[in-house]
Amino acid sequence: MRKHITGFSNPTVKYLRSLRDKKHRKRAGQFLVEGLRLLEDARASGPVPRQLVMAQGRDSHALIDQLESAVESAGGEVITTTPDILSKITGKSNAQSVVGVFDEFETGLERLDREAAAIWLVAQDLRDPGNLGTMLRTGDAVGAGGLILIDDCADPFSAEAVRASMGAVFTQGLAQARWEDFVRWLRAGPGQLVAASLREAVPYRGAAYEAPCFILVGNESQGLPEAYEAECDLRVTMPMRGRADSLNAAVAGAVLAYEVLAGVDQVSGGAR
Amino acid sequence: MRKHITGFSNPTVKYLRSLRDKKHRKRAGQFLVEGLRLLEDARASGPVPRQLVMAQGRDSHALIDQLESAVESAGGEVITTTPDILSKITGKSNAQSVVGVFDEFETGLERLDREAAAIWLVAQDLRDPGNLGTMLRTGDAVGAGGLILIDDCADPFSAEAVRASMGAVFTQGLAQARWEDFVRWLRAGPGQLVAASLREAVPYRGAAYEAPCFILVGNESQGLPEAYEAECDLRVTMPMRGRADSLNAAVAGAVLAYEVLAGVDQVSGGAR
Repeated sequence: MRKHITGFSNPTVKYLRSLRDKKHRKRAGQFLVEGLRLLEDARASGPVPRQLVMAQGRDSHALIDQLESAVESAGGEVITTTPDILSKITGKSNAQSVVGVFDEFETGLERLDREAAAIWLVAQDLRDPGNLGTMLRTGDAVGAGGLILIDDCADPFSAEAVRASMGAVFTQGLAQARWEDFVRWLRAGPGQLVAASLREAVPYRGAAYEAPCFILVGNESQGLPEAYEAECDLRVTMPMRGRADSLNAAVAGAVLAYEVLAGVDQVSGGAR
Repeated sequence: MRKHITGFSNPTVKYLRSLRDKKHRKRAGQFLVEGLRLLEDARASGPVPRQLVMAQGRDSHALIDQLESAVESAGGEVITTTPDILSKITGKSNAQSVVGVFDEFETGLERLDREAAAIWLVAQDLRDPGNLGTMLRTGDAVGAGGLILIDDCADPFSAEAVRASMGAVFTQGLAQARWEDFVRWLRAGPGQLVAASLREAVPYRGAAYEAPCFILVGNESQGLPEAYEAECDLRVTMPMRGRADSLNAAVAGAVLAYEVLAGVDQVSGGAR
């Protein structure tokens, strides 16, 4: 189905624009993906947008043409509009030439197959959507199964998180859970819970990591609650040679994830 | 000296507000630091603000009182104003209760003592101020000597970079240089130039790192120019198990920096 929109007050424009807001995303169960590169990443991983919104008069582009066909074959809608209206939808003065609307994914813990990957990332109360997207991107790089969001994390479907994930939001598993529910699920099967900590911890380098290893990263300013650290099977420290006693949350998670990857590879003889 | 400002159109308010803009910062040679925590970090490292701007009617706070005394002893100015004017200065609706104005530092390569540290971070054309601040923070953590900015990087004195650095902008050395000047300086003394690369590279884990090691990280979308990679003494690869072929720039720099730190420690018997 095709549609052309020229009016700023068109209800579709209002709806799409509302998806910039978390409350409206949750109500609608849909989110926006901006830019051809991310839309291509999505397509390579499976999902096709329900709607594709493009600025009229764009240069012809083979990839956009393919995307259009895919959306129409899947029963979706292709919308053309003016660059100004597209900017209004994305809130950016220099809007990308194409925006897709996707259904949000289910994010129940029970959907994760913990034994399908050696590494899982777990974020607790992570408030910065850029950090969250960066953790998804790192998860993709280390072959993690996915990212589990504990307590009040940023929304992984926000434009900033999707952009920082560089498409990994479409390839990494995603689950959201309260801490108690996560622990109950974790303890019902194999899984080592690991966190960086300043208390009773061993050096992170060469520690006894075991797959599936769940790497827990805490809130940007508060770190992990003490009770959460206490629940961990392994607490590790990273060298801190300067004045500060912590790293950026996404950086800490990545340094740890690459160390776990090396440890797990060694155990399995590098066969993974 | 003390001053109280009540008018939005006061020239001091206009001046302070202008420091949010890079062009004005460069012209004035000054930058803003928002929030008590960052101002305390600065004080612990040495520099005292030229001006301290506070919202009137704030709760009394021992640390702010000490900061006030330090500014006045150093011949600086303490300015009180309304919360609304402070918000206008910082551009944030929910402004921090205190803002400091600092002189920008000198950033010449010749000021760096390369043998004072085993690790140096080098960013090329890094456009995201958050990434740049995060690299400063990581540099502090691994005991790096500083961050060298090549080509057209984001401004390390922007509010976002200062915030992401968590105070490391005051402890890490900072230099800005064109590539040719950097290479000339680098080759005039000891120093190994290392970058993550997909071309003719060895595994990053356990590679032959040598102090002082200069870790080069490229632009967020383009990576490093081929000629820059060719100049490196060591090119290393990190595992990429997923769909993507790269990490976030600040993350890649950190994973590499922690690996170099482990390697350099091993060579020196962990004595550093």
